[in-house]
Amino acid sequence: MTKHDESSILAVGSLAFDSIETPAGKADQVLGGSANYFSIAASFYTPVQVVGVVGEDFPSNHLAWLKTRKIDVQGIEVAKGKTFHWVGSYDKNLNEAKTVSTALNVFEHFNPKLSDAQKNSPYVFLANIDPVLQQRVLDQVKAPRIVACDSMNFWINGKLEELKKTLARVDILSINEGEAFLLSGQKSLLQAAKFIRALGPSVLIIKRGEYGSSLFTESGTFLAPAFPVSKVVDPTGAGDSFAGAFMGYLAEAGIHRDMAKTDPKLFDTILRKAVMAGSVMASFTVEDFSVHRLMRLESEELVTRQHSLMRMIAV
Amino acid sequence: MTKHDESSILAVGSLAFDSIETPAGKADQVLGGSANYFSIAASFYTPVQVVGVVGEDFPSNHLAWLKTRKIDVQGIEVAKGKTFHWVGSYDKNLNEAKTVSTALNVFEHFNPKLSDAQKNSPYVFLANIDPVLQQRVLDQVKAPRIVACDSMNFWINGKLEELKKTLARVDILSINEGEAFLLSGQKSLLQAAKFIRALGPSVLIIKRGEYGSSLFTESGTFLAPAFPVSKVVDPTGAGDSFAGAFMGYLAEAGIHRDMAKTDPKLFDTILRKAVMAGSVMASFTVEDFSVHRLMRLESEELVTRQHSLMRMIAV
Repeated sequence: MTKHDESSILAVGSLAFDSIETPAGKADQVLGGSANYFSIAASFYTPVQVVGVVGEDFPSNHLAWLKTRKIDVQGIEVAKGKTFHWVGSYDKNLNEAKTVSTALNVFEHFNPKLSDAQKNSPYVFLANIDPVLQQRVLDQVKAPRIVACDSMNFWINGKLEELKKTLARVDILSINEGEAFLLSGQKSLLQAAKFIRALGPSVLIIKRGEYGSSLFTESGTFLAPAFPVSKVVDPTGAGDSFAGAFMGYLAEAGIHRDMAKTDPKLFDTILRKAVMAGSVMASFTVEDFSVHRLMRLESEELVTRQHSLMRMIAV
Repeated sequence: MTKHDESSILAVGSLAFDSIETPAGKADQVLGGSANYFSIAASFYTPVQVVGVVGEDFPSNHLAWLKTRKIDVQGIEVAKGKTFHWVGSYDKNLNEAKTVSTALNVFEHFNPKLSDAQKNSPYVFLANIDPVLQQRVLDQVKAPRIVACDSMNFWINGKLEELKKTLARVDILSINEGEAFLLSGQKSLLQAAKFIRALGPSVLIIKRGEYGSSLFTESGTFLAPAFPVSKVVDPTGAGDSFAGAFMGYLAEAGIHRDMAKTDPKLFDTILRKAVMAGSVMASFTVEDFSVHRLMRLESEELVTRQHSLMRMIAV
């Protein structure tokens, strides 16, 4: 493997059109999808291989743009039909999306098949898709250093047993606070974290929107704030871009699950810094609709805000 | 002045009976009141002089207990009539109290008159009372090093002009997030903070319940988490005990408003540590109804949890 490959992330998830209404305005048929947000965010840190499916209506110039970011789009199939379309809205509580409608379209028959390069990816992120598909990806990967996944209430309610099978096989779960309560049946953050970690993922991130996120590991708890932005335009993709920067940071740092035992202090420190990276990335995402802010984000802005957030938690 | 006096805090506010219903249970006619919570919390750090009024029904053994904590209760008048009685409830969202009823009773004619010792207090905390009364206290104090105050939506809606006069005269305001939005008419934390600081208080604390609190000073922003507790029994008094530990820490550290100019870095560091102290104290308060948890709190528990919270924010 080349140095390039050693930090590469395989991301399996959706590329989509989103139609969104927030208190700040409306956006119709804009680019979205978990793998889209994830890969752009991660590409600030490390190469990414995306596996997903789009319809013939998906703009090829966006795929071309992703390529310019060291994002390998060979795993994105262009299928006959229309791209996955999500219609959602947010009321004053910007921490919770309401799904108005979902048209799966070509995503309905999505069945991830990995190439050899993808199978050998050292880092794996399973975005919020059917847990059955998440397991199919895990069946194909060879020897990943770290596997992380996301999920949502739709799967917790609809495919709990399958989701549990996925969770038993991953190192890291990233999930919203409301979903953590739903999945665990617990009412406090600590109790929910304990319950969920017992299902499999030794590392758990509970995201709390504008209130930040919490990291739970064998070594303890880390409470990270969200970077306070002047105006939240659209929270869509905040969680996915958080995960992208988080995983990108982990991959760049060369983390391995074995470090939890061989060097738990370093393992924990890398995870904490990765959470901070995720927090900063998400704060840019919400400043505009779609992936617009991420697409024009400069590395210098990222660094500046990272330093700024570090100062905001220093005692 | 003796060493004892140099760190003494004057606290003006209510002592009350509370009847509270939360998802965890009910408590009828238990001890409450802002000055009660505040002074017990502050007494872990420094002596406190309380000014307030209670009715003849207020248990004298509680006043006697406060005395054992180096809390000077000479300024608590026992008036003919009944003690202030607040009836409140919390639904699942434990961050917001609903007032069911308020019987001011003897508090209706409360008119704080300070003794010479109280007038000379170097630290002053004006709990959440009528801003007209807050100003009357300020008219009487001689040369405080730092003045802090609290307020609430009742005064923001009902006595905004008087509240603004108070704010123009204080160094520190401690307020809930919802109240900060109401007072400022702004929708983001940063914009609200900017607006409110322009009204007078150069130091602003915006409390966000279980999501922590944010400190805004000339030097920047500090984002502090709440200490995550396994079960919140009753959030009543969390803000007042936060303020008590916060002010207690400031007084113990000998802070002075002039330090904002002469040593802004130290000034900011003391404030940040004080916020952490407040966060930890509040986390104990909510573990039981009334001041019960605070009354049985040991200094060692406080220190242990402070270290624990520091580890939870270390990167």
